[in-house]
Amino acid sequence: MDQWVPADAPAGLGQAMRYGVLDGGKRLRALLILAAAEAAGADRVAGGTEAAMRAACAMEMIHAYSLVHDDMPCMDNDVLRRGKPTVHVQFGQAQALLAGDALQTLAFEVLTPDAPADGAGSGAGVDGCLQTRVQARLCGLLARAAGPFGMAGGQAIDLASVGKALDEATLRDMHHRKTGALLLGSVQMGAACGGLEPGSVAWQALSDFGDAIGLAFQIVDDVLDATQASDKLGKTAGKDADANKPTYVSLLGLERAQAESAQLLSRARQALVRSELGEGATAMLAALAERIVHRDH
Amino acid sequence: MDQWVPADAPAGLGQAMRYGVLDGGKRLRALLILAAAEAAGADRVAGGTEAAMRAACAMEMIHAYSLVHDDMPCMDNDVLRRGKPTVHVQFGQAQALLAGDALQTLAFEVLTPDAPADGAGSGAGVDGCLQTRVQARLCGLLARAAGPFGMAGGQAIDLASVGKALDEATLRDMHHRKTGALLLGSVQMGAACGGLEPGSVAWQALSDFGDAIGLAFQIVDDVLDATQASDKLGKTAGKDADANKPTYVSLLGLERAQAESAQLLSRARQALVRSELGEGATAMLAALAERIVHRDH
Repeated sequence: MDQWVPADAPAGLGQAMRYGVLDGGKRLRALLILAAAEAAGADRVAGGTEAAMRAACAMEMIHAYSLVHDDMPCMDNDVLRRGKPTVHVQFGQAQALLAGDALQTLAFEVLTPDAPADGAGSGAGVDGCLQTRVQARLCGLLARAAGPFGMAGGQAIDLASVGKALDEATLRDMHHRKTGALLLGSVQMGAACGGLEPGSVAWQALSDFGDAIGLAFQIVDDVLDATQASDKLGKTAGKDADANKPTYVSLLGLERAQAESAQLLSRARQALVRSELGEGATAMLAALAERIVHRDH
Repeated sequence: MDQWVPADAPAGLGQAMRYGVLDGGKRLRALLILAAAEAAGADRVAGGTEAAMRAACAMEMIHAYSLVHDDMPCMDNDVLRRGKPTVHVQFGQAQALLAGDALQTLAFEVLTPDAPADGAGSGAGVDGCLQTRVQARLCGLLARAAGPFGMAGGQAIDLASVGKALDEATLRDMHHRKTGALLLGSVQMGAACGGLEPGSVAWQALSDFGDAIGLAFQIVDDVLDATQASDKLGKTAGKDADANKPTYVSLLGLERAQAESAQLLSRARQALVRSELGEGATAMLAALAERIVHRDH
């Protein structure tokens, strides 16, 4: 990431981008990509390991851009993120807007290393048909996960929901898009680095795994938001409840929310068995699912 | 475009996206892509014609996203665009931020039709090695044109320049990135749809063409901003001068600015000859260059 987010982008833009994406966060999405790539055997595919590393960084750039924009005054108006002042507090709103925009663009640049680079590019070219097929697929998966029917769509539902009494189906739909889409997309991008084809048994099973942990992640997030202090979370706790935003905890109660996250962990484990990729290959994915459900921040 | 910008994206997001990108603008970038694709013989390449249409729409989505964000109160705070209220005036700042974000993402979705679509996707799949190589290249060219060293970098320079006495070199660098990068990228994307390879004689000549018209476009823009009324332009005229932003006219004077745009038109025409693609194939590019320099709005 340090190598691909340019410090020398003009007029301080690079510094704002680096501030928004470097040294912070759990890197869960990146780890999911690397773990899914390992499960799918990306190390036995030409260019697979580099593709997975690029995919992991690209996904973190998308995640970071969404946080930078989400924190802005016209959205959540948050001043603290990962224990630091948010980007717009540090660099001003206009630069934060641009930095988020450019982080999104850079994600697709990092995924496509063989386009001609005028001036500063993102690294050496990669040749061959397989690699460019994987590049195109990774761009497509990332765009679909982040786009109007994925993350951005979920944020639009979130925006429209403040102060409203959402029903459970709408809450699930919102989180399915807002948080779930990037987590599912991470697992699928890792699978694509290993050459797995959509529609195959392993692809479908890994997608079910990604879906389950995506939902579990948000439920656990809501539980932590209701039960933990800000300094532990590195962000302002209880903010959703204060803003009268619906959460799984406010809707289901703490106990049912915790029970559902446990069920989802079990569903994720079963999906890994069903993938037929082997216990050794999927061990890192299993460990990540465990960590998602049993984390304390 | 009507087909690819989804009206049914959640919670009004689709409506805001469509408002920002449909029925407005000169579509110059899209026309450049289609003209460059014609010059490069995209109609004789499998999938080339569809790739060019997708590239044209993707580029217009990127251009539209940049306008939506640029008009926001924390940037240029513009209330009029293409003769209509700007997106944030019509839909609110938060939805405008999201709509711009999602238009950028959708551009990369439209370029990669063979990624698996969960739910609503952007159309039928495209198979084969050549097509996916073109897809990856188009994503890479678009990202480099729009990213931190392209359009976004130019906007950062612009942001930092308000009220400052920029020298000519910095002004040129700013416009080279802010406006020129997308226009050059448009020509290169069209060339890529015809299978032209970076480094070839035709690619280099078309890139020089794109560079020349990119610069000419901005000079003419500044000339029009200084000489035309708002109702003709469809946006607020004289705004840059009012904000004490440097322009080619304020720096060079009207006469020298007009002389330079004429020289650039001549350079663009020479580049088309040098491409060796033939006068017939490059006629549409030549006509567009003419129109860029001799427009009145």
